[in-house]
Amino acid sequence: MWSMTEEQSSRHRGRPRDLNIDTRVLEATRDLLEERGFEGTNVQSIAERSGEHASAIYRRWPSRIEIIEEAVFPGFSSVDVRPTGDLRRDLRRFTRAYLSAFGAPAARAAMPGLLATYQSAGRSGAPEAWLPVSARPQFLDILLAAPDDIVDSSVDPNDVYDVILGAILAKTLVPTVIERRRPVERLVDLTIRMLQFAPADLIR
Amino acid sequence: MWSMTEEQSSRHRGRPRDLNIDTRVLEATRDLLEERGFEGTNVQSIAERSGEHASAIYRRWPSRIEIIEEAVFPGFSSVDVRPTGDLRRDLRRFTRAYLSAFGAPAARAAMPGLLATYQSAGRSGAPEAWLPVSARPQFLDILLAAPDDIVDSSVDPNDVYDVILGAILAKTLVPTVIERRRPVERLVDLTIRMLQFAPADLIR
Repeated sequence: MWSMTEEQSSRHRGRPRDLNIDTRVLEATRDLLEERGFEGTNVQSIAERSGEHASAIYRRWPSRIEIIEEAVFPGFSSVDVRPTGDLRRDLRRFTRAYLSAFGAPAARAAMPGLLATYQSAGRSGAPEAWLPVSARPQFLDILLAAPDDIVDSSVDPNDVYDVILGAILAKTLVPTVIERRRPVERLVDLTIRMLQFAPADLIR
Repeated sequence: MWSMTEEQSSRHRGRPRDLNIDTRVLEATRDLLEERGFEGTNVQSIAERSGEHASAIYRRWPSRIEIIEEAVFPGFSSVDVRPTGDLRRDLRRFTRAYLSAFGAPAARAAMPGLLATYQSAGRSGAPEAWLPVSARPQFLDILLAAPDDIVDSSVDPNDVYDVILGAILAKTLVPTVIERRRPVERLVDLTIRMLQFAPADLIR
């Protein structure tokens, strides 16, 4: 009975019948983030927008934070770049995909609120959360696929990944950096400079 | 009469008499950011904590945003590193100072809220604000002081600055990066790699 009512309610809203509850909730969340920002995106407003009961939403996600994370970072599947061994080409695809995930309107709207949430979680002694998924493994795979004589093994690729993550945050959240509108290729250049063998003596 | 009352009130709170209103307001703002976060830091709570009238505060700052900016980024005077021409040494001092400005508890508490504010300002068509001060000129000065044969003139130092800014945001706001607790020197290494002449052929 309940599921019939739900179906009728979805049909009523003109949504295709085959969309399941997860899809509807995540779509509604992205819409709300764009329209009302992080503060205006809570389980109540998500329930109203998606036409789902709050109780059904709470059965699937513990809080709005997990819904928002899943809505704006859908498993980083788009960043799942299959490495070819051509370092520049792979990094270019990786950086573009990463930037487009973080630069999407819903992701930009969500990010400051998520950062604030992770910070309070850390402060309150709870384990610090962070995105349920990360592009770090993909980045490491790209480096593994690159020829040995290009990537300097004395550089920790995790350090480079952290810098790229920061650069992408800056490119999507910091007005002075956004306004410079620098091509992605400049970040790829700098990434390669960080990774490749430095001149005989990296200045001390 | 009003100023006498104010003096008495400050004395009452055990603050030194020579602190002026600006100092008291900015101190109160930093305290509130640490204790109550960005949301709990508004003109009302700042007025209560500092013992100043809200009207006196509004005469000096247009909104809480400008107070918070001035409170957590006091002119970047600490980042005002006088370049010596020793690139690694100068970058080390610069990066440490920059990281300590952004990593201070009040600055960390303020940053996600400020980023959200700049984003909404941009969205509403108002000119996007950003920190009233920037460490960019100091960074460029350091590069100008470095020997010509070290810094590759084909690299735009502004691009490198944007990446460092992002790396520092990540090091102060992103849990997975904070947890790695990597030494500042690793970021200095990567900065030098970005800046110095690359091997004959930067891979294409």
